[in-house]
Amino acid sequence: MNACLWVSASDKMQIGDFRAFANSEKPTLRGDVVRIQDVGERELISVIHRLQAQVPLGYVGIGDDAAYLPPSSSGTLISQDMLVENVHFRVDWTTAEQLGEKAVAVNISDIAAMGGQPVALLTSLSVPGNLDVQWVEDLYRGIAKALDWYGAVLVGGDTVGSTDRIALDVTVIGRPGPTGPIWRTGAKPGDRIFVTGRLGAAYAGYLLLSHGTTWPSTVLSERSVMMAHLSPVARIQMGLAMASWAHAMTDVSDGLVVELEEITRFGSIGATIWQDSLPIDAATRAMAERFGGDPVDFALFGGEDYELVAIIPPSRVSEVLSSATRCGVAVTEVGVITESPGIRIAGTTGGGERVVYGHGFNHFSLA
Amino acid sequence: MNACLWVSASDKMQIGDFRAFANSEKPTLRGDVVRIQDVGERELISVIHRLQAQVPLGYVGIGDDAAYLPPSSSGTLISQDMLVENVHFRVDWTTAEQLGEKAVAVNISDIAAMGGQPVALLTSLSVPGNLDVQWVEDLYRGIAKALDWYGAVLVGGDTVGSTDRIALDVTVIGRPGPTGPIWRTGAKPGDRIFVTGRLGAAYAGYLLLSHGTTWPSTVLSERSVMMAHLSPVARIQMGLAMASWAHAMTDVSDGLVVELEEITRFGSIGATIWQDSLPIDAATRAMAERFGGDPVDFALFGGEDYELVAIIPPSRVSEVLSSATRCGVAVTEVGVITESPGIRIAGTTGGGERVVYGHGFNHFSLA
Repeated sequence: MNACLWVSASDKMQIGDFRAFANSEKPTLRGDVVRIQDVGERELISVIHRLQAQVPLGYVGIGDDAAYLPPSSSGTLISQDMLVENVHFRVDWTTAEQLGEKAVAVNISDIAAMGGQPVALLTSLSVPGNLDVQWVEDLYRGIAKALDWYGAVLVGGDTVGSTDRIALDVTVIGRPGPTGPIWRTGAKPGDRIFVTGRLGAAYAGYLLLSHGTTWPSTVLSERSVMMAHLSPVARIQMGLAMASWAHAMTDVSDGLVVELEEITRFGSIGATIWQDSLPIDAATRAMAERFGGDPVDFALFGGEDYELVAIIPPSRVSEVLSSATRCGVAVTEVGVITESPGIRIAGTTGGGERVVYGHGFNHFSLA
Repeated sequence: MNACLWVSASDKMQIGDFRAFANSEKPTLRGDVVRIQDVGERELISVIHRLQAQVPLGYVGIGDDAAYLPPSSSGTLISQDMLVENVHFRVDWTTAEQLGEKAVAVNISDIAAMGGQPVALLTSLSVPGNLDVQWVEDLYRGIAKALDWYGAVLVGGDTVGSTDRIALDVTVIGRPGPTGPIWRTGAKPGDRIFVTGRLGAAYAGYLLLSHGTTWPSTVLSERSVMMAHLSPVARIQMGLAMASWAHAMTDVSDGLVVELEEITRFGSIGATIWQDSLPIDAATRAMAERFGGDPVDFALFGGEDYELVAIIPPSRVSEVLSSATRCGVAVTEVGVITESPGIRIAGTTGGGERVVYGHGFNHFSLA
């Protein structure tokens, strides 16, 4: 049982993709504000490259037309997600470094949800010309920090200036674990529903920020939920561990109910969630109370938690729990897959159940 | 010699990545204008998916957290490029379908430049909420058409609404050919410089469009150069063929001189370009005359031609020429790699040489 051991990343060789990765220009960026429009694309890429050089994996070549990853017997996982200013983030809510960390975590969470391990990342960044170059440097410091944490490396991307808003599009390349990719399909009636970490905290943090509280707060509960929103953690280790037993897996980007709808939609099956077992922490409950919301709704519909939802056969529950202990990650059994379709919420008292429907976040209605 | 045979793509299995690829909602899009903000993200992805279903490759699963590509003994090539409205394209110059074709070609050209073959594509699209859904449908029709042409398939991506400008970020996944990836480095003095197709036409088309001529023109020469700008072709087949012999290869995105600077920058070597051998066609010469420019400058500095520059040892010149005949692609010997650094232009008459420097296009100065 090698759950919770990192697969070594040291044999992964990559080639930088950024066109000018290897150039030697090193603009002086400290001191006065330097705008993007005052430096060239090459200088900007030089900044990005210099920061990424801290990643302790060997590039075998210089910037070229495409990045190259050597053959792997496990196949390739690929996911791509775009973060756009004022849609997915606001520069007055987040530091650039936090945004870099979040962009990496959100994408790597998709690899975790397949039971895989991230290998390489590409970033396309478009920015307004009057943006401070220091902001971009901070962004890529956050990206480098997160990549180092997850054992992956930046291999390429693109930079574009003179746009109205900042947009950061990230592609992550990963490898499935020894058991191969874990799909969303495959759940069977009687399987138990497990979630990692806590639910609803990211939504609580979003509410707090949208009501004017700014980072960093000195109040611990406020910091806690703001961190969940501004800098979530991808559950790579638990994903690799649970991939050994999971019938299906995904991550919570749109809320637990929506994710369970995805997991059950093709099987003529459903799910019952045990309301009182949902992992909602004290900080999230405190925020729900402050804003007059129901913490259970935060957990069921809030989204952006980037925790894993794993569908585990009953015979493997003890293995999941012991691997969680080894990984130091909380894992909670929150429900069961049912023969009857639909997502139902059950309370521990009274025995009644209510049917719920996912409330997918529709970016297009924000205009 | 299997140059110019496509490697079969039929054994490549992919999994859709778009979150809601598999949903069954089919909005009615014909007739009145339907705005992005009036449909949901799922409906939009449904439009995208329906068009891509025409691609004749089997998906082995439904939409999931990440796309999966099975193991390959040749490794993986990855490139990512972002096209932003009013930086890289204008909606009053290009049809949405042409833009889709160009976005695919520009990215796949990076795979061609490595001597590889494209396998899969991911697209992140951000659009204003008041955009006609028909525009997005046309864009993805162009993407599907180009993917079909190049033998690749859309496996995932992201959609974001309510941005000010359209941005399309594309990631392409490819496989190196039998000889492995061809880098930019590796040129040796005496090697011959070959380019595919024609040079300068894309810049001529850009000039024409920027002076108010609109697509489609009824004048054949105008159509020809506008097509070069609006819908370039990636040279996958010639790239695969030349990979058997090339010491180095890249594609012409920033102009021939810039590309040769990249190819020679790490070898203490240089290049001489034979001015009179440059493949500049009659349409490009006509546009240069109309706008008072030098067609040689169009070819050397214009950029965006997406032709290949291959560095071929003298002993292999005849193989390159005969493979070009088999592929039906024009290939021209335009110069030689030299021991002395720097890029020089030599005319056939007079014998004089002039040193030139690349004029890299700096997006950041456009603001």
